[in-house]
Amino acid sequence: MKIALAGIGKIALDQHVPAIAASRDWELAATVSRHGKVPGVPGFADMAEMLEACPDVAAVSLCLPPVPRFEAAAAALRAGCHVMLEKPPGATLAEVHALADLARAEGVSLFATWHSREAEAVAAACAWLADKTIREGRIIWREDVRKWHPGQDWIFEAGGMGVFDPGINALSILTRILPVPVRILSAELDVPANRQAPIAARLQLSQGITADFDFRQEGPQTWDMEFDTDAGPMALRMGGNLLEIGGAPAGGENSIMGEYPALYARMAELVRQGASDVDLAPMVLVADAFTLGQRREVAAFDF
Amino acid sequence: MKIALAGIGKIALDQHVPAIAASRDWELAATVSRHGKVPGVPGFADMAEMLEACPDVAAVSLCLPPVPRFEAAAAALRAGCHVMLEKPPGATLAEVHALADLARAEGVSLFATWHSREAEAVAAACAWLADKTIREGRIIWREDVRKWHPGQDWIFEAGGMGVFDPGINALSILTRILPVPVRILSAELDVPANRQAPIAARLQLSQGITADFDFRQEGPQTWDMEFDTDAGPMALRMGGNLLEIGGAPAGGENSIMGEYPALYARMAELVRQGASDVDLAPMVLVADAFTLGQRREVAAFDF
Repeated sequence: MKIALAGIGKIALDQHVPAIAASRDWELAATVSRHGKVPGVPGFADMAEMLEACPDVAAVSLCLPPVPRFEAAAAALRAGCHVMLEKPPGATLAEVHALADLARAEGVSLFATWHSREAEAVAAACAWLADKTIREGRIIWREDVRKWHPGQDWIFEAGGMGVFDPGINALSILTRILPVPVRILSAELDVPANRQAPIAARLQLSQGITADFDFRQEGPQTWDMEFDTDAGPMALRMGGNLLEIGGAPAGGENSIMGEYPALYARMAELVRQGASDVDLAPMVLVADAFTLGQRREVAAFDF
Repeated sequence: MKIALAGIGKIALDQHVPAIAASRDWELAATVSRHGKVPGVPGFADMAEMLEACPDVAAVSLCLPPVPRFEAAAAALRAGCHVMLEKPPGATLAEVHALADLARAEGVSLFATWHSREAEAVAAACAWLADKTIREGRIIWREDVRKWHPGQDWIFEAGGMGVFDPGINALSILTRILPVPVRILSAELDVPANRQAPIAARLQLSQGITADFDFRQEGPQTWDMEFDTDAGPMALRMGGNLLEIGGAPAGGENSIMGEYPALYARMAELVRQGASDVDLAPMVLVADAFTLGQRREVAAFDF
């Protein structure tokens, strides 16, 4: 099936293009981007132009920033295309509900992807936790925004979500693996004096779980979650790629498929089944953190 | 049926107590409050104590501020009571989802109330708009926080929602009367230098609708919404109590039942039907405004 990719930035080139190239299901037929190009693939400056020029495109995958994404997604759905959304699936919950309604009305598939849920050890962690009780948990998600989002000012603008852009990856794993739903009890948001979105956040969640998100980590990066359960300690390290039970390695790091190839395989399956997959639980937690969060001004940040 | 009222503050005494007293369905059997009392009604300092002392209480109505409300609501549901929530139904979306799950598991009714939806002219406005197209709309919701929430500092704390406490009333009417779902495109939030929650907000919504919420209005109060449609102008004034079509009065102001009596009648109906009513659309819009909103510091505010 032919697919178009919209928003040709770092994540598109690093992950989406290789995943599509390696897929038996998809052929990259067009790109939509103001500046980015993929060599050898027809490029268009806007979505409407691509949809008109390429009527044989069956699906559109969107990796635009969240704020401009809605109009592009709605245009693709209205043209009868299946749509796949990079995380977070939108700038607001209401707009993703609207896209889901539109996909239903058009009879096409909508997939709100959470790439971290496809990390190596997530399924094993979920299976292990299913019959356990969590007593306490610690999420530590600290990375260097200059390394992963060089010069991407939109991430600190209103709607860009700041440190919740990586933090939502942790929350997408958490909401997948926990046997009972989790909620935010309180939140502290550190907002740079010259920005709108937080650069660090500390959350207190139900089930004794805390989260420490920080975008200012230089040197080694940390994407860990540790749980104390009624059956002893369990940890997911390296962004969900390594499982430890009782302190010993217990899985992960040996799968055939990476996160993005797994997403494109799942998208093909959804299209074949005529189904959609739109789970907003991680985004609800982020919206709740913004609604409930105590804001604190911290030092100005520049790339 | 016997009902207990938790959180005996201004809204409980002004609205809930008279509505229960006038109801044929309900008898006020107990109150739960740290400080407030209702003369002639047994009062308890905490929910667990009341639930143990009054096993014949069938339902609990909660008018606590949103942040402490969850634990009280969960305790009442776990004791097998039906639960009615003042708006907003919680401090976070995830906690209201959790209460809805709990009510389902316990087989009891949960009613997330939106009192403004019971205003006189809302049903007529909804019926009139059903086959119209909205070209533009203006919501102006300006009231004096010192008059309606005297000394209630919680309203400006993190999770208190600030001007969205009245603004969510407008959004609850809007999400009831519009024929198609609405979403927030952008938001500006004015936050006093000494507070966490906004004292004023301006929203740009889909369908050409703007909202102007302000908590600093002295003198006459304004709770209006005006729409330009393909069939001419329509307005809802006085918080949904007066309908104007083409500039002329067209309904409202003559009903038998006030907003809160209508809520208690509806609660009795839900209990008799074994049903729940939890519509989070107004709260999703508020969470979206907090997530997407551009914050601006304004003058400090003190009661």
